[in-house]
Amino acid sequence: MPHLTHNTYGKDHVRLTKITRRPDGRHDLKELSVQILLDGDFARCYTQGDNCQIVPTDTMKNTVYALARHASIDSIEDFGQLLASHFVDEFPHISAARVTIHETPWQRITLDGRPHEHAFVGGSSERRVCVVSHERAGNQVRVSGGIADLLVLKTTKSGFVGFIKDKYTTLNETTDRIFATSVTADWSYNADEADWNGYYDAVRSAFLRVFATHDSLAVQQTLYAMGEAALAACEAIDEISITMPNQHRLLVNLSPFGMDNPNEVFVPTDEPFGLISGTIARK
Amino acid sequence: MPHLTHNTYGKDHVRLTKITRRPDGRHDLKELSVQILLDGDFARCYTQGDNCQIVPTDTMKNTVYALARHASIDSIEDFGQLLASHFVDEFPHISAARVTIHETPWQRITLDGRPHEHAFVGGSSERRVCVVSHERAGNQVRVSGGIADLLVLKTTKSGFVGFIKDKYTTLNETTDRIFATSVTADWSYNADEADWNGYYDAVRSAFLRVFATHDSLAVQQTLYAMGEAALAACEAIDEISITMPNQHRLLVNLSPFGMDNPNEVFVPTDEPFGLISGTIARK
Amino acid sequence: MPHLTHNTYGKDHVRLTKITRRPDGRHDLKELSVQILLDGDFARCYTQGDNCQIVPTDTMKNTVYALARHASIDSIEDFGQLLASHFVDEFPHISAARVTIHETPWQRITLDGRPHEHAFVGGSSERRVCVVSHERAGNQVRVSGGIADLLVLKTTKSGFVGFIKDKYTTLNETTDRIFATSVTADWSYNADEADWNGYYDAVRSAFLRVFATHDSLAVQQTLYAMGEAALAACEAIDEISITMPNQHRLLVNLSPFGMDNPNEVFVPTDEPFGLISGTIARK
Amino acid sequence: MPHLTHNTYGKDHVRLTKITRRPDGRHDLKELSVQILLDGDFARCYTQGDNCQIVPTDTMKNTVYALARHASIDSIEDFGQLLASHFVDEFPHISAARVTIHETPWQRITLDGRPHEHAFVGGSSERRVCVVSHERAGNQVRVSGGIADLLVLKTTKSGFVGFIKDKYTTLNETTDRIFATSVTADWSYNADEADWNGYYDAVRSAFLRVFATHDSLAVQQTLYAMGEAALAACEAIDEISITMPNQHRLLVNLSPFGMDNPNEVFVPTDEPFGLISGTIARK
Repeated sequence: MPHLTHNTYGKDHVRLTKITRRPDGRHDLKELSVQILLDGDFARCYTQGDNCQIVPTDTMKNTVYALARHASIDSIEDFGQLLASHFVDEFPHISAARVTIHETPWQRITLDGRPHEHAFVGGSSERRVCVVSHERAGNQVRVSGGIADLLVLKTTKSGFVGFIKDKYTTLNETTDRIFATSVTADWSYNADEADWNGYYDAVRSAFLRVFATHDSLAVQQTLYAMGEAALAACEAIDEISITMPNQHRLLVNLSPFGMDNPNEVFVPTDEPFGLISGTIARK
Repeated sequence: MPHLTHNTYGKDHVRLTKITRRPDGRHDLKELSVQILLDGDFARCYTQGDNCQIVPTDTMKNTVYALARHASIDSIEDFGQLLASHFVDEFPHISAARVTIHETPWQRITLDGRPHEHAFVGGSSERRVCVVSHERAGNQVRVSGGIADLLVLKTTKSGFVGFIKDKYTTLNETTDRIFATSVTADWSYNADEADWNGYYDAVRSAFLRVFATHDSLAVQQTLYAMGEAALAACEAIDEISITMPNQHRLLVNLSPFGMDNPNEVFVPTDEPFGLISGTIARK
Repeated sequence: MPHLTHNTYGKDHVRLTKITRRPDGRHDLKELSVQILLDGDFARCYTQGDNCQIVPTDTMKNTVYALARHASIDSIEDFGQLLASHFVDEFPHISAARVTIHETPWQRITLDGRPHEHAFVGGSSERRVCVVSHERAGNQVRVSGGIADLLVLKTTKSGFVGFIKDKYTTLNETTDRIFATSVTADWSYNADEADWNGYYDAVRSAFLRVFATHDSLAVQQTLYAMGEAALAACEAIDEISITMPNQHRLLVNLSPFGMDNPNEVFVPTDEPFGLISGTIARK
Repeated sequence: MPHLTHNTYGKDHVRLTKITRRPDGRHDLKELSVQILLDGDFARCYTQGDNCQIVPTDTMKNTVYALARHASIDSIEDFGQLLASHFVDEFPHISAARVTIHETPWQRITLDGRPHEHAFVGGSSERRVCVVSHERAGNQVRVSGGIADLLVLKTTKSGFVGFIKDKYTTLNETTDRIFATSVTADWSYNADEADWNGYYDAVRSAFLRVFATHDSLAVQQTLYAMGEAALAACEAIDEISITMPNQHRLLVNLSPFGMDNPNEVFVPTDEPFGLISGTIARK
């Protein structure tokens, strides 16, 4: 006899633009994509098609817009908590709500050295991310921060030597290669109220500084150093997981054309790519 | 003091085309994308940049092509096992290898009612997927099958009534709507040697049959029925997890133009979408 | 003094799902994406922001849905003509309307050898395309058909020899390679009323037959043969343009591993790709 | 009798990373994607499979890398001319070469207020584009500049009133809406030697300034003003074509929840979108 061992449902890609009009004429702009997933007593819907315990996903979407009306959305972490708590508070049969938010960055257009009041330029692949889990049991709220697709590249100070050679190895050792990656990371906060924007900026800045200045012997080593630096920069984080694909730039062999190639001409490739992950935690 | 609590690394999107030339002139075609992830004693690479325990991801890529030369690749599950075992067998410091393969479907072109010997038509979003985990401890091999992005749509026999109404609910009840989804599922096999192709076909056929014929009261209910049917169709599976986004087709309100709309004119939308998941297991 | 030398505007990606319920219980399903572009006397909007001649693009969208209500949409070519004529007929200051429609294919799910009445499977990259241009001057209507992203691959009967070798040539000649491409083509019809579905099927079938059976000495040659066959198969077409990217499968060099590779193991690549185009017309 | 009326072929998505190492330790980074298309006497390849006049597309790819070795690539317009001239100069049967280059922007990482020597951050959707056409007849070289996918948004100073209302119009007039678009433009230079980087920056800056400060009565009007400003900012341009999709942010109707929505809560949508184009030229 089959039975339902796990279930969850919700709404994904609920997109929101929120404008805040400040008294001084400046407008703040937030663009988010929200995912809401609910756990609870929904088994009868799956096994019998009985929807009496089902909050429609369309209602979840409406709730995002309604709550956005009077929320400041100063940070996605705050708005995520507001949303997650709403569902746990309103519906006793819901055991947990998990809200994931991706924020699309917009920068103010700079004219004559000054940021514009209401005009913005966007288009970056980078996303700020948070996940808020609110469990009814113990009224426990967990907030995670994250960053996705922060694209960085350095043209030197990266090497890869001393690795295992076996019968299928053709890679040459190098002490000077291009290091390009798209950083994705998430970290759990040890508090549910915090300076979310300050913490995020601290982690992001630590990532950029270490990536730029680290003398890299392996992608793994730079990843670890970036994690260490993030923990050092932000006391509100006890653990951080980082994934860094190795987006290879392959040195072009120009010898068939009678030319050398002293690390100047490369082919950027999308696939295959190395995939390096690690989790760094405080002792 | 920070420390490394978890790590894994490998190669992703290693793409392979394998042609098998049969004695009768027929060619078989397989196109795969392989991901390999290794667990093991790699901490010194992260913390000190010491690569002496590192199998380069470039070597993993080469290994896929070298092993593909003499492997039949009759099924991705077999090839995944070959690859995973290779790394565990060759390198004592590797504790586990996890190989994920996505297979792109190609159909033979049909001419005059006959499938062609060596010409194929492709382009479907559907992927056959497997995950093979080989752990050194206990020499344990686990094989999972899966399907991704099987796009299906039915124009009737789907309704949604009796759900919770709260202050944010605007959705109307309906007894006749379009039901469109992109089925993604994975299931664990209770054997490591099996009729992989037969089992896969059994699950896929069960999905299509139930989707087409089920009188759906909720996406959840159809998902559960599809899982039940897959377990019934394939004894080698004890548990199956299914995710089905609700890819809404919204009924267009034509009343501003003095027209009714008896379930004929809809807007297909990509976002937001409902996201429904469930795991069904044998008792 | 700058001035406006050309302008056009419209609405793109107007998506439509249309269900036709036949008396015998069968449902027909069409999914389209419509682009409408208008030419006309709109200069004052550009130069002065005067919208008095502007049909809002939102109205164009509404018009698609309103006209879809009572149109049969037996073919996108018919529906495109209905739409294009609407704008030219309604608004005297509009000099031309150009409607482009992409149709997403859906196949009926087959159960027990029979196509299902109302359940479909989709997901192909292939699109049927049409462009209808309706010009007020001369009340001239031009209909073009097209196909986009028809993915085909043959594992043999394709070679490439005898090409120019210069100082930058490293490619080896081959008499047996994989030939993979994604066919995109468009053709102009020499009538504005026709058996659109029959003509489209004739072209598509001709493409598949020639691609499968042609003994290819160059992508260019196969492209030309496919165009010839399309003209032969459909008298309503006088000219056809075809673009076929050469989606390379690169033979893997296995010699570093002591292996030969008799055209069995290849790497599929997305970029770079050859790009071959040609237009074939009746004399 | 069918015959070939037009043909062209070439290589697309030839990706290049070029590092220039300056004496002062700074590295310059360029990442490009190159398309090369050749016109010439290639008919026998199409009609007979005779490749004796065919420069393989693989050789075109190699040529990009070989020429990049000693080219400075200070601008894509210069490199495009070098490439286009190469093919016309080397092969007498080639009548024209057209080279299109997309450049991916990378910014130096800023640490302690200073741009880093060799570390960069990327990820923007924006591309700088050029098209160089070199025709043998008259040894004529034409250079076009361009920008693609420059994403901008303003939260106010945009309205849309006074448009045509017909039976399918439901759009409300508004004097305050969000204006978001992704600017794509191209312009022809009236010289083949120029301060390409300065000209590009002049156009881009003019676009951003006008977009930010224009009091918009229609997307068309802002587009025209941006074109005017580009011509004013750059004497080397006589004509510019701009396309600006209207990437709608829809005001959410919060009245079902007893709330007003004073232009604060919007849904960003990808489709459908308005599509506005115009060409502005000097008298």
